Amino acid sequence: MNSLDRLAHEFAKLPGVGAKTAMRYAYAVIGMSAEDAADFSRAISDVKEKVHYCRECGNFTEDDVCEICRERPSDVICVVTYPKDVAAMEKAHSFGGVYHVLHGTISPLGGRGADDIRIKELLARLSGVKEVILATNPDVEGEATAMYIAALIKPLGIKVSRIAQGVSLGSDIEYADSVTLSRAIESRVML
Amino acid sequence: MNSLDRLAHEFAKLPGVGAKTAMRYAYAVIGMSAEDAADFSRAISDVKEKVHYCRECGNFTEDDVCEICRERPSDVICVVTYPKDVAAMEKAHSFGGVYHVLHGTISPLGGRGADDIRIKELLARLSGVKEVILATNPDVEGEATAMYIAALIKPLGIKVSRIAQGVSLGSDIEYADSVTLSRAIESRVML
Repeated sequence: MNSLDRLAHEFAKLPGVGAKTAMRYAYAVIGMSAEDAADFSRAISDVKEKVHYCRECGNFTEDDVCEICRERPSDVICVVTYPKDVAAMEKAHSFGGVYHVLHGTISPLGGRGADDIRIKELLARLSGVKEVILATNPDVEGEATAMYIAALIKPLGIKVSRIAQGVSLGSDIEYADSVTLSRAIESRVML
Repeated sequence: MNSLDRLAHEFAKLPGVGAKTAMRYAYAVIGMSAEDAADFSRAISDVKEKVHYCRECGNFTEDDVCEICRERPSDVICVVTYPKDVAAMEKAHSFGGVYHVLHGTISPLGGRGADDIRIKELLARLSGVKEVILATNPDVEGEATAMYIAALIKPLGIKVSRIAQGVSLGSDIEYADSVTLSRAIESRVML
């Protein structure tokens, strides 16, 4: 394989990138200045060398403990599935506590049990915690994981909450799926 | 900027990659094995070091003269705009001669004249050539570039042809644009 095909082959390993897009990206790299391409190459090796999980919350960080864990009050923990969920939450600017990243969901069909995700690590962080907000995805596995964690934590006398589910803001009721709509009606809020 | 954001920033330089997709790619790199990420990083620097233009045709190659120029009869030259057009032509398996890559079109509005693309290099290759096939894009700049080159080469007694234009195979007449349709009717072939 020549180096152009080899680079396209590497790009094709990225999510959602087919052979044609991969070749387009490879051509774009050829079109870059030598300096830009060197930066790009270095950014890839850097990220693997420097980024690892935060010892506390499991989010990506270049430090031992991430900035959020170091600087924010730790009495409210928001539990999410993946690091990208932390990024989404932070963009919403609505949560000022710390996170806990599970790195997966409980999935009997996928062969992942409670020991395969970071639940033990969550339980070890609970001293002094007032509330745990469960922000796993509103799908079957996310729900099951949330329910499992709630059942473990509630007996300890800690408040456990689940993010609200309903129709998305700015969406069109006409196009909302029926599961979402029935959840939105069940969880209606009195005015 | 941390190394994750920096990598996403590099990915966002690729064509058609926005901030969200770039971040998704960056997360994917973190999820790769250290070995895969090293291969990826190396593929990028390799391609810039090894790939350059063929001295004859201007296509990408890792050699002095590319494989196509070395191995094929050079009495028919197919003129294309970019190296990716050579790749598209080769996939069609319908042309057995050599190529000439212009690396651009004549574009008065874009400030590119005949001297800014590889036309002089084409003229220098014409001894012994029987036919030049013009395969620039069927758009305004591609047409103008083809006409310009035809006017230069025809007086030398060399056959000059232009790839056929009409409705795409497998397409739907209903959705063909009117310029394409009128060209398809003008250029109709008697049965």
